[in-house]
Amino acid sequence: MVKMQVGVIGGGVCDNKTEMIAEEIGRELALRGVTLICGGLGGVMEASARGAKRQGGTTIGILPGNSREDANRYIDFQIVTNMGHARNAIIAASSDVLIAVGGEYGTLSEIAIALKMGKTVVVIESKWGIEGTIKATDPQEAVDFALNAIP
Amino acid sequence: MVKMQVGVIGGGVCDNKTEMIAEEIGRELALRGVTLICGGLGGVMEASARGAKRQGGTTIGILPGNSREDANRYIDFQIVTNMGHARNAIIAASSDVLIAVGGEYGTLSEIAIALKMGKTVVVIESKWGIEGTIKATDPQEAVDFALNAIP
Amino acid sequence: MVKMQVGVIGGGVCDNKTEMIAEEIGRELALRGVTLICGGLGGVMEASARGAKRQGGTTIGILPGNSREDANRYIDFQIVTNMGHARNAIIAASSDVLIAVGGEYGTLSEIAIALKMGKTVVVIESKWGIEGTIKATDPQEAVDFALNAIP
Amino acid sequence: MVKMQVGVIGGGVCDNKTEMIAEEIGRELALRGVTLICGGLGGVMEASARGAKRQGGTTIGILPGNSREDANRYIDFQIVTNMGHARNAIIAASSDVLIAVGGEYGTLSEIAIALKMGKTVVVIESKWGIEGTIKATDPQEAVDFALNAIP
Repeated sequence: MVKMQVGVIGGGVCDNKTEMIAEEIGRELALRGVTLICGGLGGVMEASARGAKRQGGTTIGILPGNSREDANRYIDFQIVTNMGHARNAIIAASSDVLIAVGGEYGTLSEIAIALKMGKTVVVIESKWGIEGTIKATDPQEAVDFALNAIP
Repeated sequence: MVKMQVGVIGGGVCDNKTEMIAEEIGRELALRGVTLICGGLGGVMEASARGAKRQGGTTIGILPGNSREDANRYIDFQIVTNMGHARNAIIAASSDVLIAVGGEYGTLSEIAIALKMGKTVVVIESKWGIEGTIKATDPQEAVDFALNAIP
Repeated sequence: MVKMQVGVIGGGVCDNKTEMIAEEIGRELALRGVTLICGGLGGVMEASARGAKRQGGTTIGILPGNSREDANRYIDFQIVTNMGHARNAIIAASSDVLIAVGGEYGTLSEIAIALKMGKTVVVIESKWGIEGTIKATDPQEAVDFALNAIP
Repeated sequence: MVKMQVGVIGGGVCDNKTEMIAEEIGRELALRGVTLICGGLGGVMEASARGAKRQGGTTIGILPGNSREDANRYIDFQIVTNMGHARNAIIAASSDVLIAVGGEYGTLSEIAIALKMGKTVVVIESKWGIEGTIKATDPQEAVDFALNAIP
């Protein structure tokens, strides 16, 4: 039985509200038995991983740099790509569906790559308004929308 | 003396108007002695490379697949990445400045990665309206804006 | 507490003896509570993952293609790189130490990249005899040598 | 008419003899109208590019880092991969045939990847003795062997 893998993407730095949303999404994914994939660093990546771990979930960090130690401490498995921004394509390709929480250019590039790959992308607190994304208004809804989109 | 390298990005399929703009941008870049970098395939990539070659310019195609033969025939040098969408990061990183002509999700991801890297991105015929991009209204202006942005 | 990540590398096709060694190495790694990283496909990759799973271990497959479904069924977490052979660098970078079981050119390239990164590489049933690798004569010894090499 | 692209690989630091061989190979490739592809840095990469440029040839550097400025000054076109060692796969995939001059682990990984891709690899001054490579005893012979191997 293959477990679902959901990507949570967003800025490496974020405000409190965004952080709380990301943490709640991580918790919710863990509750549903889903593996969380993220970029492994700070901000939204750390908050969502923290939420997942506090609920007993599993987390994978796909890191841009060249060391496992770059990961935040809520990451169970560190994938060391040493590919910088190009690692975003690996996050998108490895995720059955993605949830974008807030985010700037890096997140936008990831949203676009995921859509290009034909993946569903749920957005919350997003300033981008990219056509083809699904807008959620709270963490539970984001996770509902995401999991319903997996074939 | 290092020559400037300008990335021209856009869809692998495009309408006639977009194609004419791309071709004119390629020609203009060649006239100014600039190397054109693109994704090496069809649509905007082919049109811009054709424009450059007809003006005696130089073209590099950074291909997503695993064969030099995937490139359109206006590419002088084929870089075979076999990395799919992740090759967009290489196009952005190798270009001093980028010009996006029309484009869908793939182009959007490239615009966003380039902005994330701190590069200037000039857009023309774009539906995205991403903050931080510079909007041009004709090919000459696009090339002017692009070349003026190179430090 | 970060768990150790050990890469097991080898051919996608292999003979029975090599397969049995790979499976035993996987089992041994699981017994010691170590995460197994591999390329996620058949042959040595599948045998080592099978050994790990039968012992209750955890397995990560770093896939060359573009689908989670390319992975063998003993992989817990599928990382989809869509980067072909270049994914070997990610396996090496993500592993604290590597064990090469048999193997041809693909394995050789991985051994060399890992050594270039300064990682310890234990080899067993190897035809290459590359200086700097550590030669083991049975699966237990291979795992002993590997785990002792992690700082 | 697509020009041949030949990869020259070898260490970023090398002794005088190796450097002279690399430079002579670069010169010879330029004389035959072939594009030289290399890793863009020092040692064998710089010497071969210098040889090519002094003979009026064309050189492409596929760089591991994130800046065009990392390239040696004999590189005409800088491809910025920001992918570290994984860029070796791009050098191999972009070259019709490869010539390895001396070299350590990095070169070995590149030889192995190229052989895995089914490319011909000519070696000179190599300590590796990998089966499937073609051994040359002087620069002219290396280039002869390489160009004869291109279909």
